[in-house]
Amino acid sequence: MEMGSGNNEKAGILTRGWRWMKDLPKNSFAKGVEIARQTKKIGQDDPRRVIHSLKLGLALTLVSLFYYFQPLYKNFGVSAMWAVMTVVVVFEFSVGATIGKGLNRGLATFIAGALGVGAHYLASMTGKVGEPIFIGLFVFLQAAVTTFIRFFPKVKARYDYGLVIFILTFSLVSISGFRTDEILDLAHKRLSTILVGASTCVIVSIFVCPVWAGEDLHNLVADHLEKLGNFLEGFGEEYFAGSVETEFKDNKSFLVGYKSVLNSKTTEENQANLARWEPGHGKFMYLHPWEQYLKIGALTRKCACRIEALNSYLNSEIKAPEEVFQRVQEICTIMSKESGQALKELSLAIRTMTKPSSPNRHIVNSTTAAQNLESLLKSGSWEDINLRRLISVAAVASLLIDIVISVEDIAESVTELATLAKFQSPELNVPESKIPSNAGISTKQLQVQDCPRVIISINLTPATDEVHQSQFQDSNQEAKQNVQV
Amino acid sequence: MEMGSGNNEKAGILTRGWRWMKDLPKNSFAKGVEIARQTKKIGQDDPRRVIHSLKLGLALTLVSLFYYFQPLYKNFGVSAMWAVMTVVVVFEFSVGATIGKGLNRGLATFIAGALGVGAHYLASMTGKVGEPIFIGLFVFLQAAVTTFIRFFPKVKARYDYGLVIFILTFSLVSISGFRTDEILDLAHKRLSTILVGASTCVIVSIFVCPVWAGEDLHNLVADHLEKLGNFLEGFGEEYFAGSVETEFKDNKSFLVGYKSVLNSKTTEENQANLARWEPGHGKFMYLHPWEQYLKIGALTRKCACRIEALNSYLNSEIKAPEEVFQRVQEICTIMSKESGQALKELSLAIRTMTKPSSPNRHIVNSTTAAQNLESLLKSGSWEDINLRRLISVAAVASLLIDIVISVEDIAESVTELATLAKFQSPELNVPESKIPSNAGISTKQLQVQDCPRVIISINLTPATDEVHQSQFQDSNQEAKQNVQV
Repeated sequence: MEMGSGNNEKAGILTRGWRWMKDLPKNSFAKGVEIARQTKKIGQDDPRRVIHSLKLGLALTLVSLFYYFQPLYKNFGVSAMWAVMTVVVVFEFSVGATIGKGLNRGLATFIAGALGVGAHYLASMTGKVGEPIFIGLFVFLQAAVTTFIRFFPKVKARYDYGLVIFILTFSLVSISGFRTDEILDLAHKRLSTILVGASTCVIVSIFVCPVWAGEDLHNLVADHLEKLGNFLEGFGEEYFAGSVETEFKDNKSFLVGYKSVLNSKTTEENQANLARWEPGHGKFMYLHPWEQYLKIGALTRKCACRIEALNSYLNSEIKAPEEVFQRVQEICTIMSKESGQALKELSLAIRTMTKPSSPNRHIVNSTTAAQNLESLLKSGSWEDINLRRLISVAAVASLLIDIVISVEDIAESVTELATLAKFQSPELNVPESKIPSNAGISTKQLQVQDCPRVIISINLTPATDEVHQSQFQDSNQEAKQNVQV
Repeated sequence: MEMGSGNNEKAGILTRGWRWMKDLPKNSFAKGVEIARQTKKIGQDDPRRVIHSLKLGLALTLVSLFYYFQPLYKNFGVSAMWAVMTVVVVFEFSVGATIGKGLNRGLATFIAGALGVGAHYLASMTGKVGEPIFIGLFVFLQAAVTTFIRFFPKVKARYDYGLVIFILTFSLVSISGFRTDEILDLAHKRLSTILVGASTCVIVSIFVCPVWAGEDLHNLVADHLEKLGNFLEGFGEEYFAGSVETEFKDNKSFLVGYKSVLNSKTTEENQANLARWEPGHGKFMYLHPWEQYLKIGALTRKCACRIEALNSYLNSEIKAPEEVFQRVQEICTIMSKESGQALKELSLAIRTMTKPSSPNRHIVNSTTAAQNLESLLKSGSWEDINLRRLISVAAVASLLIDIVISVEDIAESVTELATLAKFQSPELNVPESKIPSNAGISTKQLQVQDCPRVIISINLTPATDEVHQSQFQDSNQEAKQNVQV
């Protein structure tokens, strides 16, 4: 009996093995296709990834010239290895990350090298027996203290890599068995090669299709506002349209876009940290207020959280009966739509780096709608209604009121950004090319949504005769008065 | 006039400089105190940080013995440097991260070294002119391809460091100007020193006060459930108690604890990735279902998002009038409290690794309360009420209903975890020491909240006389019958 089961098992294993062998080509092919599909997707999602890979190859090839050209090789010897190592570990996706790592590596190597030589010299004075003990003590202490410093959040955000290199260099220099003059020569060579490697990285990173962390953060924050705007713009109609239409979820991607906003905190903080290393570029100055983007991001996430709560009512089956709630429905739809449009306008203001119109027409509309809703509810003409049905609509209305407040906060924060970063006042004839195609608002809309205003510019010349000057200005004003819509 | 302003400016700068000099000791002292305070806080928040720093110092000192002991030094020469480098970059806070990095570094060095030697050999066959061109091509291609592979999310999560080391080693080996036999000798030495460094890290990391990423994830998920539980348990009373009491926000930290849950996704995913490298330890097997913790984490965040929406009503001034809403108030308080207790019980079940009671008494209670609320609202005895006041309560009630559903989902997910990870069935006399002091539920509560039950244990001895045996069991049962509460 037992032998029989053993044979069966053996046969089972054989059969499975044979099946696996038979399916191997098919499975390998399927896996290959899957990998090819993923590769294509990763490249298409962000073509800069392909460019980054090529850039790293370029920087590495450039640095390896050290080895090929004999005169250089003779000068630096094996130390040229450090240039290659530096390129591999320092070259990062964004300019900010590359500069940050390069600076960290260079400075940490320099400081730790100097301190290491000092430690080595001090220990060598204590004689043959004392030397290893003292060096061991120095290495232990500096490693422990520096590692602990890495836990400080502010230090971790900007100097983490530098501290690792500090421990590394200090240990290598202080425990190496060389004489002091040998160490100095070695340190000099190593530092130069590291500088060569780091500057190759920075130069390639900046001058070959640069990827700026700051610009990415800027676009990310604008993207997030737009996603929330898209949801809110469509929510009202979606919710009150009833369950029949909501079944066609085909092109309703705007309803799930907000979800990526919820978990964006780490990415945003990381990019803000990297952006601080970057020099001025394009529309961004060196000391661009990156902190303010984090504030907008936090408010955006708060709003997204409310939208998440709102979203659960989209799929709930309890919908309000049409007859009773027509007025509520109308106001809620307005609140939702206007908040959404306000967010999209703020998103566009960030994208084009123009001051958001203040007060924002859409925010005024949504606030008015919220007030109307309150007074409607206070009027008390609500007898004989099914409260279970009311409760869902009440919750939606209440969440929408919160969202309107949330949008106001975001608008305030964006206005603050516009002031800090000295955004331009909106030019009315923004060329179509300046607005990204995915911004969702056309130039035409932009022109319509600004109120007509009078722009008066005054030429100030040095005052010689004040009365005359005043008259001159008056006539000048009249001439330059110009209604721009 | 201008000279006067120049003098004034100079005086201003001097005054400011003098003030700065005068304040320097005070400011330095204040800064020193601030740093000391932060240091203490970072150490107290997680004392394992101090231990980690000392562990790194220990590992580094151990490895530097390579330099001190001359026979070892003669064997490995300058390659001993690689052991030091390996310790500094591989030693991480948790065991999982250290093992992961060590394995990545070791394997990548081995594979890339072998391929590098091959590339070097191939290129050298093409002659003096072709060699640098071919090597340049190889380096460029492998760097570009490997860098692109780093963008695959699954690869990035586990093998990112290995790929960096792959590029590094391949480049160093293939472009080095050495002869093939020299390279082989060098590669052998380097690989051995890296293995020595990596194993020192892993051994120190595991045997000196180990920090397990898996255990951290386990506790984090339990912590989060407890934080949400604390909020919900207190919310009902807090909300309906009116604004008088809510002004005393002194020891109301339970109301903000949930906020840390909202942004926990990255941390959890990171720890789950690291935990997969860890061998079995303590209560966790090697293939513990870490993925399931991520599922619970996602549901917890969803619940936290609803709590965030709920929280905004705590501070709103519109409270429901007491007379009308007494019944709603009562039911809502029950829903909130019971959901909170259910979450805390689930948290305790995870902490003690026991199966959660199913069906959970608190979940049943909260679901019943939710049903009561619905039927109360349907009864329609709600005339002459101020709808503006109702709307806030309606939103709270509606959110609470959502939260009850959310808690049910979490309970289901925890039960699934208990099955996958083979949690023990709850022992009724859990020793006090097994429950962490911050679990919030004392053993007494644990005993009370379980229903009284009869435990019958039967001694099975090989059956010789079945009738006799049966009689024996009967008497045995009576003797062992024991009511444990």
